[in-house]
Formats: sequence, C-alpha cells, structure tokens
Amino acid sequence: MTVSSFHPPSRVLMGPGPSDIHSRVLQALGRPVIGHLDPEFIMMMDEIKGLLHYAFQTTNQMTLPISAPGSAGMECAFVNLVEPGDNVIVCVNGVFGGRMVENVERCGATAIKVVDDWGTPIDLNKLEDALKANPGVKAVAFVHAETSTGVQSDAAAISALAQKFDALTIMDAVTSLAGTPVLVDEWKIDACYSGTQKCLSCVPGLSPVTFSERALETIRGRNHKVQSWFLDLNLIMGYWSSEGATRSYHHTAPVNTLYALHESLVMLKEEGLENAWKRHAKNHLALKAGLEALGLTLLVEEGYRLPQLNAVKIPGGVDEALVRRRMLADFGIEIGAGLGALAGKVWRIGLMGQSSSPRHVTLVLSALEGTLTDMGANTGNGGAAQAAQKVLLA
Amino acid sequence: MTVSSFHPPSRVLMGPGPSDIHSRVLQALGRPVIGHLDPEFIMMMDEIKGLLHYAFQTTNQMTLPISAPGSAGMECAFVNLVEPGDNVIVCVNGVFGGRMVENVERCGATAIKVVDDWGTPIDLNKLEDALKANPGVKAVAFVHAETSTGVQSDAAAISALAQKFDALTIMDAVTSLAGTPVLVDEWKIDACYSGTQKCLSCVPGLSPVTFSERALETIRGRNHKVQSWFLDLNLIMGYWSSEGATRSYHHTAPVNTLYALHESLVMLKEEGLENAWKRHAKNHLALKAGLEALGLTLLVEEGYRLPQLNAVKIPGGVDEALVRRRMLADFGIEIGAGLGALAGKVWRIGLMGQSSSPRHVTLVLSALEGTLTDMGANTGNGGAAQAAQKVLLA
Repeated sequence: MTVSSFHPPSRVLMGPGPSDIHSRVLQALGRPVIGHLDPEFIMMMDEIKGLLHYAFQTTNQMTLPISAPGSAGMECAFVNLVEPGDNVIVCVNGVFGGRMVENVERCGATAIKVVDDWGTPIDLNKLEDALKANPGVKAVAFVHAETSTGVQSDAAAISALAQKFDALTIMDAVTSLAGTPVLVDEWKIDACYSGTQKCLSCVPGLSPVTFSERALETIRGRNHKVQSWFLDLNLIMGYWSSEGATRSYHHTAPVNTLYALHESLVMLKEEGLENAWKRHAKNHLALKAGLEALGLTLLVEEGYRLPQLNAVKIPGGVDEALVRRRMLADFGIEIGAGLGALAGKVWRIGLMGQSSSPRHVTLVLSALEGTLTDMGANTGNGGAAQAAQKVLLA
Repeated sequence: MTVSSFHPPSRVLMGPGPSDIHSRVLQALGRPVIGHLDPEFIMMMDEIKGLLHYAFQTTNQMTLPISAPGSAGMECAFVNLVEPGDNVIVCVNGVFGGRMVENVERCGATAIKVVDDWGTPIDLNKLEDALKANPGVKAVAFVHAETSTGVQSDAAAISALAQKFDALTIMDAVTSLAGTPVLVDEWKIDACYSGTQKCLSCVPGLSPVTFSERALETIRGRNHKVQSWFLDLNLIMGYWSSEGATRSYHHTAPVNTLYALHESLVMLKEEGLENAWKRHAKNHLALKAGLEALGLTLLVEEGYRLPQLNAVKIPGGVDEALVRRRMLADFGIEIGAGLGALAGKVWRIGLMGQSSSPRHVTLVLSALEGTLTDMGANTGNGGAAQAAQKVLLA
C-alpha cells in the first residue's frame, strides 16, 4: 500500500459538530510544539483555566480541559463522583442521557431513569417524583442541550430541585457552552463538562470540565479509588494546579490542541459571551424562517429549541440520506443525520460557533432549497434564503 | 484579565517527549477540520490503520489510535483485558510499570509485582519464578522501553515466557515504537499501546494500540462490562471497523490530530522502519561518545540502553535543575529531569523521531559542554561535539 499525504476536501460544517474553525485557531494549532512542563506552557495553562472560568461563568478552582473528547469529560464526572452502590437519577431524553446511564452502571452504581420523549425537555414533575421516591440519591445527571434532538432543558430548575433533595448535579453542556447561557455558579451545578468542537469552534479532542467545592468534598470522601487512572481528578489536579513550580507530571498534555483551545477562548472573550449567545439566537431565527419557506418544521416546540442545533423533521417520501449526500457532493455542506430513535426522522443543522453566521444560514438554505426542489420535495413557497435575510437584516 | 494569543517560544525538544515535529506534520495538523463521519475522513482512517499495521509490524485487525494520550492507551489495554478477581503479573522497573500496577488494581484485580531496580531490565528468572508460583495468571504486563530510566527489556523473551504459562502479554511500547524494533506479531504480543509524541514525532494526544485475536477472544468472553465506556473496544471498533458505510458514531474523533498522525506515519513509511531504527541507534552512539568527553556516563548498562532515551548520571555537586534551566534559557533546549526514584539523579536526553539527528546531537553536546564548563562541572576532556562527529561522520 502506498499512502500519500492527506488533503481534506473543502467543507462547510453544519452538522452536530465539529463546526467550522477560524483560521486563527488553526494557525494556533499548527505552531511548533513545546514541552508540557515548559514554564511558558504552564503560564498558558493558567490562562486557559482563567478563560474557562469565564466560559463556564464559575469561580470553581477545579476547572480545566480533560485531554480527550467530551465523552471522556462525561466519564470523568461520573467516575470521580459516583461509587459502587450509589443511586443516581439520570434524566434521559436523547442519546446522551442514555450514555450517562451506561456510565453510572459501569461505576457499579444504580441509574434511576427519568425518561422523556426524544425532542421534549426534561419534565420537572417527573424528576421531583423520582427524587421523592428515592431518598438519598447521590446525584441528578442531565443533559442541558441534547445534541441528538436539539432540545434544551431548564438547568436552573433541575438544579434547584436536586439541591432541595440534597443531591449533586452533573450537567452535560457539550453543545450549550458558548451557544446559550451556561451559568455554573448561579445554577449551583456541581459537575459540568463540555466539548471543544461545538460552539467554541475549536478542534475536537478536549473536554473542558468544572467541579464545585461540594463535588470536590465528595471526591475527597470517597471509599474507593477512582476506577480510571487517566481521569482521576486527584491526580490530574497535580498537573493543572495553580501552584506553579510544584506541577507534577500526570500524562503528556495534548500541547497543540491546547494552543487551539486557548485561541478559541481568547476569541470568545473578545466577542463576549452575551454577544455570542445573541448571535446564535438570531441566526437560529433566520434559519427557522427559511426552513418554513421550504415547508419544513422543527422537531422541538418553541421555547425549548437550541439555537445552535436545529432538528428538522424530514418530509414524507423524501430520501433523507440522499439529501445529505447531495448537499455534501454538490455544495460541500455537511448537515447531520438523526441519531438513535430519530434516525431517518430528522436532519440536524448545526449553527455552532463559527458556523453560526449569516453566510452559513444563507448558504445552507439556498443549497437545501435547490436540492429539495430538484428532488421534487420542496413543499413550501420557496425563497428560503430571502426569508432568512429578512430576519438577519432586520 | 486580558489574555492575548499565545505564541510558543522557540524550543529544541530533547527530553522524554514530546519530540520535535516536522513542518509536514504541523501543516497537516492545521488543515481545515472536516466531519468525523465524512466519507473522505473515513478513507483516511483506513489508511491510518494500514500504516499502524506497518509501524507495529502486525496484521491484527484491532489496530487503531485511541483518542487520548498514551496513559489512556495503557488504561484501554487493562480495562478491556482485566476483570475483577484476575491475577496479573506486572514487571516493575520504573514509573510506567508502577502505573500499570495502579491500572490493574483499579480494575478490581490483583497485581503480582516482579520488581527490578530502576535502570535495569526485567529479570527473566524472576518473571519465570513468579509465573511458576502463580498458576493461572491472566496476563503478564511489562514496559518494553522504560521512559523513566532509558532501559529496554527483552520483549521477545518475556512474551515467550508468558506464552509458555498461557498468559496474555500487555506491552507498553510508548517510547520504543519507531525508535527500536517493535515486532508485535513475531513476538506474539497480545496488547500493545504507544504514544504519538515520541519516536513518531507527532503531536501528543493519541495512543496507537493493537490487540491480537487471542486478546479479542478474551474481551468477547468477559463476565463484566468494560468499566470505561470511552475505552470499551467493543464500542470503539464500531467506529473504526473496516465495514465502510456501517460506521457507527461512538465519540467525536480528534480529526486534526489524526491528520497529523497520518502524516507522521506516511513519513515513517517513506523512511522505512529499519532505517529509522538505524538512525536512532547511530545518533545514540554519537551522543554517548560526546557525553564521555564530558566525563558523563549513562545509567543503563550497555546492551539494555534505549537509543532514543538516554538517562545520564548527574555528576556529584552539580545543581541539576540549574543545568536544565540554563539549557532552556540560554539555548532553548529542553532536556528532561529524572522521575520518581531517579529524580535529581539523572537527566533524560531524548533522541526521538525528528529529534534524533546529527544536528540535535551536536547542539545538545555543545550546549551542555558550555553550560557545565561555565559552572565548573566539566570533568572530562571536552570536545564533546567533535567526539560525537567522529561517530556521525564515520
């Protein structure tokens, strides 16, 4: 086999992540590597921690990026907080809630499921009933922004309920961070993890996490060692702590990917979190107007929609996979398929980070209109991009 | 806090990794991201698997890069192969053997330690005694190339012993892969993991792994679910399998880091494994000649030395940390400190991948000679770089 260098095709990324990446971030990524214990690298790590405090809106000391993708961030939260024999309530309304159940069970604990339909938010009444029926649960775990359905749940209310029953909260903010408000301290979230390849528009491969002081007390009081050596926060903190010279080696940090995260967080700070939230909200409304012009509707009820992840119902009789393949082949645009229970039923159009812009909205709508029209599947009045621009330019 | 873009200082990396990275690999890293399910990305994944077959000298179907650093590769081997109640012999002659013990114990299994002094290879007689004394051990785990000491153990002989007693072998090849022979199939190794930031001269953040058919049978016959969801090979293989269209999403792959790994493996193929081994061997001999001219000696006995990782004994009375700080400040050269039992006792000079070149040897020796002379600590005849060049140019 003779293999030559790989040159990726030109793509516009409008699926569930990764999202498009600014050239500033790609340039940071490609800078020469330095040592993971180099004094200048350690200064940069401290800056990343500070920038993550801003992104998560927290003062939690234990705030850092895990050296692996969001799934490892999820696992980090569970293996550190959950022990064999614990009971954990897991709210399940999509793929990632299901993955949380797997994590709880693999920790030797019991997952008490609070199940809602895919595409609906977590039902607070059901959660309260479960908390009442199961005194002494260790934690309530939930997905703030379900990437598989495009639904947002009321994190503040869920956390308030958990507090009332003296349970810890574990929140998945993979898709929400930097796209919609994530207020870790205000909401009193004990453990929160995210990913870099969504609204932060960095490369995939890291998982920013933050843990409250209450979470750390729980970890310090464990009866068993954390089952993962790689994800044991007691050990990771020795490397990421603020003690400067006393850093101890744990694993070799992904130096270049951390350059990229640093740059994407600097860009977030420059834009300002609130401006980023507003941008995501406005582009979503524009997309929605355009989709309506094509006779398309969103899966999620108004009020629970994630602006950055739009699950679009597939009209009857349309070969949804062919539409995605044609969007990719004819226009170089990636949109996402449905996952799990929604496979074949929705497309997922991401407007995340750098992919949340007027030109992305305009392009995806024009391309989708052309594709559906060509396939005889445009059931609306057309003029999708123009409908969007009415919102964008208002 | 106002934070601006990070620009790394100019460094020459001659510690225990990361090593210097070729501009081809950095350029690959910085190419635009595409989707982790993009058909062209999946083609590239297949190429990576093929190139890893070459690097590991194996035909194992289960050969792929784990989306996290070498420590996660280690954990992947243990959590998939080891179950609660198992007995595993772990050969410990440095930091990474100790980390293996941690992994075994966190799997709920018992680690039977075969301990050798730091800087010496694994004693085959002790291992055989342990195998005789503990019938039915599930696996023998060992570090082929101990990065903490610079010692290489006889992997072929260790594996042959394990086979004789019907135990699986788990081999750490983080520092050996592409620097000295790693012959997975010939040696009948059942699980082997490596890192990308050593002799492959790629960025840190991935761990290439390979598992034999015998290892896969063991995994398929497990009584308990793998305790890590993120590292469960049953799930990972659904994404990395060769079935083309049937790839199923597991986690978001670190797309750009995989571009970089692809390029570094293409470069390894172009050079040829045997040429890479020869290059590492020759530069090591040159370094050794130069060190002798400075009155310095290597920790490890001849015959067991890793050419890519040279543990140099620190002469009495020398402030070893000051030497490292001055090498970094005056010349931008990073050399490594001792770890664990060897902290303060050795420097670790890496000649790995792109950092194994005549100019690296020449530079580090000249700089070290100047630094030691300035500190009044040059106890040799001097002329270190010239002594090295006699070997290099022979």
